Amino acid sequence: MIGIKEVASYYAPDRVSNYERMEKFGINESFIEKKIGIKNVRVTDKNISASDMCVLAYENLEKKIKLDRSTVECLIVITQNPDYNIPHTSAIVHGKLDMPESCACFDISLGCSGFVYGASVIKSFMEENGFRTGLLFTSDQYSRVIDPEDKNTSLLFGDAAAVTLFTDDPVYTLGKMSFGTIGKKYENLICRDGVLFMDGFEIFNFASGYVPVDFEKSLAANGITKDDIDCFMFHQGSKYIVDTLRKKLGLPQEKVVFDIEDYGNTVSSSIPVLLEKVMNNEEIKKIYISGFGVGLSWASGVLNRV
Amino acid sequence: MIGIKEVASYYAPDRVSNYERMEKFGINESFIEKKIGIKNVRVTDKNISASDMCVLAYENLEKKIKLDRSTVECLIVITQNPDYNIPHTSAIVHGKLDMPESCACFDISLGCSGFVYGASVIKSFMEENGFRTGLLFTSDQYSRVIDPEDKNTSLLFGDAAAVTLFTDDPVYTLGKMSFGTIGKKYENLICRDGVLFMDGFEIFNFASGYVPVDFEKSLAANGITKDDIDCFMFHQGSKYIVDTLRKKLGLPQEKVVFDIEDYGNTVSSSIPVLLEKVMNNEEIKKIYISGFGVGLSWASGVLNRV
Repeated sequence: MIGIKEVASYYAPDRVSNYERMEKFGINESFIEKKIGIKNVRVTDKNISASDMCVLAYENLEKKIKLDRSTVECLIVITQNPDYNIPHTSAIVHGKLDMPESCACFDISLGCSGFVYGASVIKSFMEENGFRTGLLFTSDQYSRVIDPEDKNTSLLFGDAAAVTLFTDDPVYTLGKMSFGTIGKKYENLICRDGVLFMDGFEIFNFASGYVPVDFEKSLAANGITKDDIDCFMFHQGSKYIVDTLRKKLGLPQEKVVFDIEDYGNTVSSSIPVLLEKVMNNEEIKKIYISGFGVGLSWASGVLNRV
Repeated sequence: MIGIKEVASYYAPDRVSNYERMEKFGINESFIEKKIGIKNVRVTDKNISASDMCVLAYENLEKKIKLDRSTVECLIVITQNPDYNIPHTSAIVHGKLDMPESCACFDISLGCSGFVYGASVIKSFMEENGFRTGLLFTSDQYSRVIDPEDKNTSLLFGDAAAVTLFTDDPVYTLGKMSFGTIGKKYENLICRDGVLFMDGFEIFNFASGYVPVDFEKSLAANGITKDDIDCFMFHQGSKYIVDTLRKKLGLPQEKVVFDIEDYGNTVSSSIPVLLEKVMNNEEIKKIYISGFGVGLSWASGVLNRV
């Protein structure tokens, strides 16, 4: 069965401090530390594209695991900030990494639910086609579409990429996944004319309302209860949304990860960058993952350590 | 097993005649009829988006088959001309069609190989997640990115959308699929600063060189020979490429479809719009489908009538 073997990530090195913007936005330390939980956001250099970030993440993967590129049969990029709309960014990454001509490549457009969707897509696509080695990239540079004067977005989003290696010799396999969409509310998080708009109130209400319902459905589909889960990885939108979900669901604080103080909300990379940190932790047997945001869209599921 | 139940399409109603542009581009009737095989290309009204074309295709689907929207579990849009880069166009289509909140939605970015990829992705994703009803949309408006003065592109591409219904009660099931990418050549077909560029010579050489090799590999993977195929549906890039492939592969003319005289090259919709026309033809038992272009990318496979 195809599952997750390894994860590597890349954060844009340049930091923009939220402390240095307190006066400009009329916020204080408490807002930064207790409400959003983001001290710095990461911003890519203007010469670095989504495909470049994928390549940099891949180079970090090769530092961890020996991988013969000629064995890669599938390469998917999840992005909403593609290098171009034509062609797909995955083809560009394929060329830059000198992957074999027999490698299947396509892009998926999704936001914060992207990694969970992508995990299900790549697993099923690989099994359908008899593939043994595949790469799922997530790469977004929201800094390119953020108005630095917009408090609702510029304090939150950070630029990063991740690459997740899927093989037939996995560390984590996928349990049952759950998906959903409220397309009618798509205008609550949208990029028009190159500028991102987010109705933070609506997005918070969506996440705090829908994710708990999905949580119960998802655990039931996997035939487990919340006590069976060793680690909860909710999309890292802000400290406030993760804290709210934790309290609503009655989860123990030590099992609920929040870890974006130095990066910001990295969209579809927010779950794989957390996953990377537990790949070598044998005590983490079952992980609950849940992404939600742009679309509006959500996806959740359980990862089981082999 | 999940497979194709029905197909419906939508062509932009406005035609631009290639005959009326003969003097401008220094071409003659023979070029139009024998070389490109495209008399008119279709151009969408500026107020019609990719999601609107999906909705129009879906309305045509509902004229053919009764479909309870509350049963749709999955909705994928393949496009390179999304309404926005954030959010995904599939969420907008979901909202416009009032699909259920439990419906999984995502976009795939691919060009002329998109339908073949998409068929494999939606089939495997649906089977993985136990879904019984899904919609695969293809929708592109290359007219939005074509320079009307560019002979290499403006005589060829036409705007259309298609929707392919996948269910567990299919008319055609998917055989083995084959995929490939030459990412290093991505600049041969690219949209920079809102304008499409195509190196027609390079794209022709790619297609006429790689597709025949893939053809043999694909038939072998399906354990059949070309004589077992009732209908060959190559991506309809131009008459010249389809004729070249037919001759190179020694295929009988009556089995090789060419049918874009009144529309143009509709990118990822070029195969499903052909498929629509044979859904009720019980004599067509095995279909070979092959898409190639942007990426550079190709994908092929066999459809088997149940």
